[in-house]
Amino acid sequence: MASIFTKIINREIPGHIIHEDDRHIAILDINPNTKGHTLCIPKDEVDRIFDLSEEAYLDLMAFSRKIAIALEKAVPCQRIGMSVIGLEVPHVHVHLIPLQTMEDARFMNKTSMTSEEFKQLIGEIQLYLG
Amino acid sequence: MASIFTKIINREIPGHIIHEDDRHIAILDINPNTKGHTLCIPKDEVDRIFDLSEEAYLDLMAFSRKIAIALEKAVPCQRIGMSVIGLEVPHVHVHLIPLQTMEDARFMNKTSMTSEEFKQLIGEIQLYLG
Repeated sequence: MASIFTKIINREIPGHIIHEDDRHIAILDINPNTKGHTLCIPKDEVDRIFDLSEEAYLDLMAFSRKIAIALEKAVPCQRIGMSVIGLEVPHVHVHLIPLQTMEDARFMNKTSMTSEEFKQLIGEIQLYLG
Repeated sequence: MASIFTKIINREIPGHIIHEDDRHIAILDINPNTKGHTLCIPKDEVDRIFDLSEEAYLDLMAFSRKIAIALEKAVPCQRIGMSVIGLEVPHVHVHLIPLQTMEDARFMNKTSMTSEEFKQLIGEIQLYLG
């Protein structure tokens, strides 16, 4: 069965899409640790990041870096944290999380945002993607 | 002042060194989330990962992948998680963490290991680094 991310990629369900190229998509996490929490996802549905080929892995990392640099400009934070865990959705996704404190990296405290806030934030990040 | 990682790289203080090349070093975390928790560190002392040049960042990511693949063979786990946070030591380090559950990724539960256990584990990981 297609993962929730594949369904977003295929526009079968809605997602807060920031950016995509032919091999990747970046979306805002629907249940963010902090405002700006983003997922960078390869369009090929592979479960575990280190099962990607070296080429596909480095492509994903380069894509994630591009998004992180824009995110850092758009969202006030100490720095952008990056995490790949993958115990929940079996489709590789790189978390980019604007961090102020270590608590923001633990996936325990969550923040809520309205649809309007998601939409506005996407516009702000896109401004820095050039 | 040199970071604790630079001091390990320069052999000014001891570290549980798994592997190094001319630009990176991999060490076991002295205060691991789980057995096998590893740090991959660029020898150039840069604070924030997204301040690395794209080339230096992708080199570090390729090095981390190589270590992660060996680590996954050496340590029983569901998968290897990867995190970059950096709010404590201002010298880029990629955490590679053998995960069984989400708790292992939160940096709250810690495991303790003896010097002998660290030494044995290094040998086991090195077996898979070829």
